[in-house]
Amino acid sequence: MIAADRSAAQALDEADPLGAFLERFEPIESGLIYLDGNSLGRLPADTPQRINAVVGHEWGERLIRGWDEGWMALPTTIGDRLATGLLGANPGEVALADSTSVNFFKLAAAALHARPDRREIITDHENFPTDRYVLEGLIERTGHELVWTRPADAAAAVNEDTALVTFSHVDYRTAELYDMAGITHAAHEAGALTLWDLSHSAGAVPVELERAGADLAVGCTYKYLNGGPGSPAFLYVRAEHQAQLRQPIWGWLGRHDPFAMAPGYIPGDGILQTISGTPPVLGLTAAACGIELSIEAGIETIRDKSTQLTEYAIELADALLADHGVSVGSPRDRTRRGGHVSLTHPDARTLTRRLAQRDVIADFREPDVIRLGLSPLTTRFGEVYEALTRLAQLLATPGA
Amino acid sequence: MIAADRSAAQALDEADPLGAFLERFEPIESGLIYLDGNSLGRLPADTPQRINAVVGHEWGERLIRGWDEGWMALPTTIGDRLATGLLGANPGEVALADSTSVNFFKLAAAALHARPDRREIITDHENFPTDRYVLEGLIERTGHELVWTRPADAAAAVNEDTALVTFSHVDYRTAELYDMAGITHAAHEAGALTLWDLSHSAGAVPVELERAGADLAVGCTYKYLNGGPGSPAFLYVRAEHQAQLRQPIWGWLGRHDPFAMAPGYIPGDGILQTISGTPPVLGLTAAACGIELSIEAGIETIRDKSTQLTEYAIELADALLADHGVSVGSPRDRTRRGGHVSLTHPDARTLTRRLAQRDVIADFREPDVIRLGLSPLTTRFGEVYEALTRLAQLLATPGA
Repeated sequence: MIAADRSAAQALDEADPLGAFLERFEPIESGLIYLDGNSLGRLPADTPQRINAVVGHEWGERLIRGWDEGWMALPTTIGDRLATGLLGANPGEVALADSTSVNFFKLAAAALHARPDRREIITDHENFPTDRYVLEGLIERTGHELVWTRPADAAAAVNEDTALVTFSHVDYRTAELYDMAGITHAAHEAGALTLWDLSHSAGAVPVELERAGADLAVGCTYKYLNGGPGSPAFLYVRAEHQAQLRQPIWGWLGRHDPFAMAPGYIPGDGILQTISGTPPVLGLTAAACGIELSIEAGIETIRDKSTQLTEYAIELADALLADHGVSVGSPRDRTRRGGHVSLTHPDARTLTRRLAQRDVIADFREPDVIRLGLSPLTTRFGEVYEALTRLAQLLATPGA
Repeated sequence: MIAADRSAAQALDEADPLGAFLERFEPIESGLIYLDGNSLGRLPADTPQRINAVVGHEWGERLIRGWDEGWMALPTTIGDRLATGLLGANPGEVALADSTSVNFFKLAAAALHARPDRREIITDHENFPTDRYVLEGLIERTGHELVWTRPADAAAAVNEDTALVTFSHVDYRTAELYDMAGITHAAHEAGALTLWDLSHSAGAVPVELERAGADLAVGCTYKYLNGGPGSPAFLYVRAEHQAQLRQPIWGWLGRHDPFAMAPGYIPGDGILQTISGTPPVLGLTAAACGIELSIEAGIETIRDKSTQLTEYAIELADALLADHGVSVGSPRDRTRRGGHVSLTHPDARTLTRRLAQRDVIADFREPDVIRLGLSPLTTRFGEVYEALTRLAQLLATPGA
């Protein structure tokens, strides 16, 4: 139990092994409390100069030669760093490309294609919207059936007609951290494939794709990975599946020897076949800067601080907000919780707006969630204390 | 007939109404002759500072608020500028998103879905590889048949079983400019839809999507539009089709009211439904800078200079290179030619490499093409003269 006061926050900040990382980010407006790094992570201090170098030197001076001098390899060189540094995967299993939505489409379609005799897809009606919508679009053309299932019930729902089981690793609203290994095991027992959306876990919790046996995964780089607005997403295909699985968007840069420009598509080797179009060099450059910061900090250290941050936020919510009708919507078991904390209140939308007027940026999520994103590399415990104190003040003065 | 000498080049440069635009781009290495702007256009002088502002201020300081302060609208605000300024289309018909390959996949799939009783797709075996490969991937899952047809033969090939007719507007190798209006008319007579790849025409030749009756189009922004390496592509859906056509990647940002995060995908209004994932803000920023330069120059003025450049290059090739076994692979009729010139020679690959050693950057294209990209905003006639003179010297001294 941490005391719900300012001095406790101060002590936690002083003991924070990641405290120095705050200086690795560009400063923000004095007094602003930014609890939305799980929507858009802050700007790393290295990023502007790195982008300037790529724009001014690599594009401006090296011009087309940039492709042979590193650009063409960016999806896989950054992918290898992300795989081994943060995702518990192997070199050659991760690439950066496209958006999370497009990658999810590619890999979900690949999974259905690999299980041609099975008609069911298991997912969660609470899953992140783009995953749900992309699946709805897919089945409109393939005739598969969506079986809406909470992750806890997945093992019971999976059967010999299940082609694909797909969930978010961390729930975008509640922050619940689902059992990747257990669900994957159950899926495999029934002969199904798994596809994990890591958007809310990459860079916040250790992801162990190899150890969990995960088949496929996607995720974004603009949240905890601090890759910038709309930075390229990533995708993971387990090595043992790469020779068989076929994604449906056969763009030229996923072809073997693309610059032969020869007749007939032949998939590129390994993870390269997942690429479709020309790599987005500016976005990849920013994504790499953010990813390197998280690798440098170390995912175990990040997870330790993340757990402390969420623990402290929950203690404060209990102490300061419960009497005002605010409930904690995230799991109280720290092992089942990702990097953010959801508070629920009937007036959540208005409260989130009023918090913003008091320089606290959080997220509202339908229908009644105030989502506090706590970024281990940038969020200080003192900010969590200030934010929840201000929320308590708002609740105590409803007309203000 | 232009005299094939240095003084003619000088006179053309002095009379060039776009000569001043060279100063709107960052300088390149002194002495370098860059004839590859149709692979990657040069860096506009405004772009670095604009990117710095977006990175440093909008991302670094405005943070998540950037989405409401302009980022979310970028795909369509830039799309409107491109539509009306360069593509002969209307506001609301163009969006920037994804890569050309992904956009081509989306719109080709949408077209097949809109013509469910038809089994044939007409395209060209000389079409740009990504278009061919994406179609091959599509038909593997849908069972359609590809009917390989040269654009000149399209009108004869289209029939009541044709769902889609798709070609590049300008051939990536020969620079041949195909008859968009005529082919579209023939396709419509048979009840088929058309999908045009504008990658080698946008920013080089006037594109008249509305007047030609074109149904669908895609294209890239990193060639003549100077949007930077891997900048986002664009797509066009004729207004009258937007209520019926459905692209297959139902990402959250193509949904009506995406932040409701509600159950069930409902397509967004108009062109918005073509969006899938989060807009790539850095790439869009650079794309906008490049597009604005071409709009400012004016597509008719661009076309006039482009025609002069290609005409001059062909005259020089005839005068200096024909005796060395170099042929002109591009149409000699200026009205049937886009913005680049192809020279063919059995040793094209080696010659392109040796040109690069002599500070002339051009492209080799299989099997025997030296492709000279002549960018109206940045290429000077004197550079064309120098480049072809050096090529003549190389051919005269094969052992050098």
